[in-house]
Amino acid sequence: MPKAVVLLSGGMDSAVALAEAKAAGFEAYALSFDYGQRHRAELRAAARVASSLQAAKHVVIALDLRVFGGSALTADIAVPKDRIGDGAGNAEIPVTYVPARNTIFLSVALGYAETLGAHDIFIGVNAIDYSGYPDCRPEFIEAFERMANLGTKRGVESHDIRVRTPLAALSKRDIVRRGIALGVDFGLTLTCYDPVLTGDRAAPCGHCDACILRMQGFREAGVADPALA
Amino acid sequence: MPKAVVLLSGGMDSAVALAEAKAAGFEAYALSFDYGQRHRAELRAAARVASSLQAAKHVVIALDLRVFGGSALTADIAVPKDRIGDGAGNAEIPVTYVPARNTIFLSVALGYAETLGAHDIFIGVNAIDYSGYPDCRPEFIEAFERMANLGTKRGVESHDIRVRTPLAALSKRDIVRRGIALGVDFGLTLTCYDPVLTGDRAAPCGHCDACILRMQGFREAGVADPALA
Repeated sequence: MPKAVVLLSGGMDSAVALAEAKAAGFEAYALSFDYGQRHRAELRAAARVASSLQAAKHVVIALDLRVFGGSALTADIAVPKDRIGDGAGNAEIPVTYVPARNTIFLSVALGYAETLGAHDIFIGVNAIDYSGYPDCRPEFIEAFERMANLGTKRGVESHDIRVRTPLAALSKRDIVRRGIALGVDFGLTLTCYDPVLTGDRAAPCGHCDACILRMQGFREAGVADPALA
Repeated sequence: MPKAVVLLSGGMDSAVALAEAKAAGFEAYALSFDYGQRHRAELRAAARVASSLQAAKHVVIALDLRVFGGSALTADIAVPKDRIGDGAGNAEIPVTYVPARNTIFLSVALGYAETLGAHDIFIGVNAIDYSGYPDCRPEFIEAFERMANLGTKRGVESHDIRVRTPLAALSKRDIVRRGIALGVDFGLTLTCYDPVLTGDRAAPCGHCDACILRMQGFREAGVADPALA
């Protein structure tokens, strides 16, 4: 089986991306980051998802982006609530944007892939129902892929490094449906930027962008969110 | 003064890159990585160089690439000695290549730059007298810059992120000369991949690619290397 690196946050989208990698016949190596995010509870969710979907391995890399700050997800800035109208994305880049986050995550995934002898990287970015982050857009992914094939031994020798974005053109509704079809247990995932922690349990806030988009997706899919059960 | 992020390894090239950033009128924020490199002593050299050249700040990011392995610089693989003929580069990519290293370093620098409100990143890559790493070549740097302008808030809004490579077209001889002209104290730098450690002192091995290229540069410049004094 060919190997692939899958960026796994612990949220719903990356869980479906991991399931897609498996469905496409890859041995999946899940990669998560402990980057100082306030919603660090997502790392426990990532471990549950990696186990449930039988990733070959789950690696968590520590990379403290709090040294820089500049984002509501890593610094002492409030996560905006009820910011986006239900049913619509938003063209403005919000304060939850983490500078260059997907570039950094994809770069480390690229190094991991090269070490594994893999040339496929999966990332659950989505440019339909999303927060407006520039590093989720197809033109960014294409530019990253081109750069990756120029900046690595593997890329220079084989020109075959691919960044796969199976969710890029799906609505949140379709991501929910696709996940269910692939056997993803959404009850294991945590999508929220600002979860309410009670002991080991992390409950979604219900009001951040990520929560609103997730609720919208489940509602439109006509399915109850098992994480809210 | 505009701000710039300068990747600073502690070796001779990045020291000159930092001096170039200062000479170009930037307030320089030096960025180093503790990535599990066997030549970790270079981080002490980086701190000395940052202080000597009056960087506004020197940040060291911990990012343990040993988790992946795959390189003589981060795993239990011997650093090749006397590999390249004196006076010549080498087209083959050696085992000291660290998968996607410059991509990872530039990505983190990009996040730091965006947080600082900077749009210039300096890196001391050189594609004349070098080890044959793909991520030192101008075509890689250009592709990275293009990607950076698509994947960041700053890039999308202003299209002005620049990766500056003042050493790209210089020979090692000219890097030595340029550094001396800019007041770089090469005695503070450590270029070697496999230094001999005696207490706090790290002496260059004299036989790895980095040592050979450095010796060649000083000899051709007609200057004694103060690090060997």
